[in-house]
Amino acid sequence: MKILLTGFEPFGGETINPSFEAIKQLPDCIGSAEIIKVQLPVSFESSGPVLTEALETYQPDAVICVGQAGGYSGIAVERVAVNLRDATAADNCGIAPEDQPVIAGGPDAYFSSLPVKEITAALKHHGIPASVSNSAGTYVCNNVMYTLLHLIRSRNLPIQGGFIHVPYSMEQAAHKTSSVPSMALEHMTKGLELAIDVLIHPN
Amino acid sequence: MKILLTGFEPFGGETINPSFEAIKQLPDCIGSAEIIKVQLPVSFESSGPVLTEALETYQPDAVICVGQAGGYSGIAVERVAVNLRDATAADNCGIAPEDQPVIAGGPDAYFSSLPVKEITAALKHHGIPASVSNSAGTYVCNNVMYTLLHLIRSRNLPIQGGFIHVPYSMEQAAHKTSSVPSMALEHMTKGLELAIDVLIHPN
Amino acid sequence: MKILLTGFEPFGGETINPSFEAIKQLPDCIGSAEIIKVQLPVSFESSGPVLTEALETYQPDAVICVGQAGGYSGIAVERVAVNLRDATAADNCGIAPEDQPVIAGGPDAYFSSLPVKEITAALKHHGIPASVSNSAGTYVCNNVMYTLLHLIRSRNLPIQGGFIHVPYSMEQAAHKTSSVPSMALEHMTKGLELAIDVLIHPN
Amino acid sequence: MKILLTGFEPFGGETINPSFEAIKQLPDCIGSAEIIKVQLPVSFESSGPVLTEALETYQPDAVICVGQAGGYSGIAVERVAVNLRDATAADNCGIAPEDQPVIAGGPDAYFSSLPVKEITAALKHHGIPASVSNSAGTYVCNNVMYTLLHLIRSRNLPIQGGFIHVPYSMEQAAHKTSSVPSMALEHMTKGLELAIDVLIHPN
Repeated sequence: MKILLTGFEPFGGETINPSFEAIKQLPDCIGSAEIIKVQLPVSFESSGPVLTEALETYQPDAVICVGQAGGYSGIAVERVAVNLRDATAADNCGIAPEDQPVIAGGPDAYFSSLPVKEITAALKHHGIPASVSNSAGTYVCNNVMYTLLHLIRSRNLPIQGGFIHVPYSMEQAAHKTSSVPSMALEHMTKGLELAIDVLIHPN
Repeated sequence: MKILLTGFEPFGGETINPSFEAIKQLPDCIGSAEIIKVQLPVSFESSGPVLTEALETYQPDAVICVGQAGGYSGIAVERVAVNLRDATAADNCGIAPEDQPVIAGGPDAYFSSLPVKEITAALKHHGIPASVSNSAGTYVCNNVMYTLLHLIRSRNLPIQGGFIHVPYSMEQAAHKTSSVPSMALEHMTKGLELAIDVLIHPN
Repeated sequence: MKILLTGFEPFGGETINPSFEAIKQLPDCIGSAEIIKVQLPVSFESSGPVLTEALETYQPDAVICVGQAGGYSGIAVERVAVNLRDATAADNCGIAPEDQPVIAGGPDAYFSSLPVKEITAALKHHGIPASVSNSAGTYVCNNVMYTLLHLIRSRNLPIQGGFIHVPYSMEQAAHKTSSVPSMALEHMTKGLELAIDVLIHPN
Repeated sequence: MKILLTGFEPFGGETINPSFEAIKQLPDCIGSAEIIKVQLPVSFESSGPVLTEALETYQPDAVICVGQAGGYSGIAVERVAVNLRDATAADNCGIAPEDQPVIAGGPDAYFSSLPVKEITAALKHHGIPASVSNSAGTYVCNNVMYTLLHLIRSRNLPIQGGFIHVPYSMEQAAHKTSSVPSMALEHMTKGLELAIDVLIHPN
């Protein structure tokens, strides 16, 4: 089994992005599964093509895209991606689309094909705060999640795919002037391992 | 140098109290300092006497009382204790005083005699979210903090003393139905070690 | 022009539901538009049929369904309804579906056909806190919004339709033990009038 | 009976300060009580002298100082003022003191001499979200509250005095990019009338 994990480069003035930092600490194999790690740009235009190329190159059995959700208290397993780009801040290429589709002509939304409830339950069972989220926003994270699910559905690929949001890391939170929730990177990595374990050993 | 750390027993339906769990993991010596660990009851009536007895028994050079502040995102170094018991929920003995003083005739409040800014800065510098807080509430935590500072001031004891609040542990947060901030116990323990280090090596 | 406004009966232990209280205070005519007011049950099973019957009876040109979003600070103009019933608490009929579709075989989601950005801007311009929301949840509110949009799309009806969430009323918030944001009912009514005005006078 | 109400000028980039806007709308007499309205500068140095002069000029029987607490959901009746100036942002004169006392040699804190619980209960009873707060911060609001209570106590004046914080007005919240709680100015004014009524008609 081959599982692709993607994280993002830093954005919004941050010097790290906990999504890729957490992924980097994953082992290269978990049980019988090979773990492939790819960093995506925080770009509406190029994040989709980079993801698409990774799918074509590695032909994974499952894909978990991961992003930073500053202000969240726990790990959020996303349930829905919408066909919408609507940014209040520019991406790393200076682009801030408003009310644009991710894929012109695509359906309004796709549900994740990951077992979001099972993943959430596994994390909580192991002491990692987690919940199912019903909105991945309308920024680059949602753009990647929609692109992934559109690829899977439109090409009828035998891939389980979805998106997970992680909070700020402790280091990020410690350097802010106002109080925000956070999670240690090692616990994010542990959470991703547990999610992968759910995919390897489905109920 | 002898430093007394106090934490609390569980209360409010929780099965653990992260304040004492974090303290239990501290080593018995940090540098040249001996660390003494005492668990206090969540009781308006008996928490003060137990603390007083510990001070008389161990005669510490510094005292850090620690309590749980459910809902906080980081470690809160308390700056003020008020002469007030005002509970919205009963303590572990079933007592819920309203608008009562901690010490009849005592001053309205005492400032902490810990270096609260230095401790906060040390924690943040090491990647542990922390802030100075201006209210320890009016429950048993404040009761203990006020009792400690009243003892120090009224007996003119050569003791640095104050109170630190810790968030829910990850395990506590993971088992709640709504999303709340949390911190891993090992990072709370690390935070307390850093606070102790500030006391051992003052600027 | 005929505009249908729906609100809900109380639920979750509340004695009022601000959504229908706000609607009741609307005038029967706004400019040239006739305002029709219907209360919906907080029921996964019967809310859809009651809404469908109202559409067939009144044949409105536009429909704004309104619901309570306890904890919100302002008026939330919903952008997306998902084909999902997933309740953590029972509805007023004692039903708490998990992971069920609203309409079996329906698409994963529908975007609102209201001008959500124009409505939000109009409210803010008139001093009423408002924002576009990307999730109407997975409870009865979302159930009604999805049902409405499915009716419109599947029957190809010439109707603008969508959903607006209102915060707790001040009276509701005043009687809670913890602090929650709220809005006076008259300002919710004002907000709905402004939304209606956007529909009557499109840019 | 003569009651002095003080509010503040705008600060922190805001164009209004809801505290004085709400006071301006109070009638000049409430029952048998004369209402005196004074605006204070957002200045650590001059707010105290302006307040002191107002007390000497008008010789009121009661004083309610009011300030803005951006982010609060309801009206907060402050219980404690601390002898501390500790600003993270400059006041309107460009001054940002750190760890300075309000009054050198003054006690660490004073409790409000207003009936804070009765005022809070009256507001809630009339549908205005309110709570007792245990910290007025360490900015100019606390500076004014401490100055007031120090004047009353040190001069042994027969004055009831304290501080009330109000949330952002709806207009302020409507123009922010992120969602924050708010209250309409007329409800703040209503809340202050209710507080005054408690002073006029004590239980």
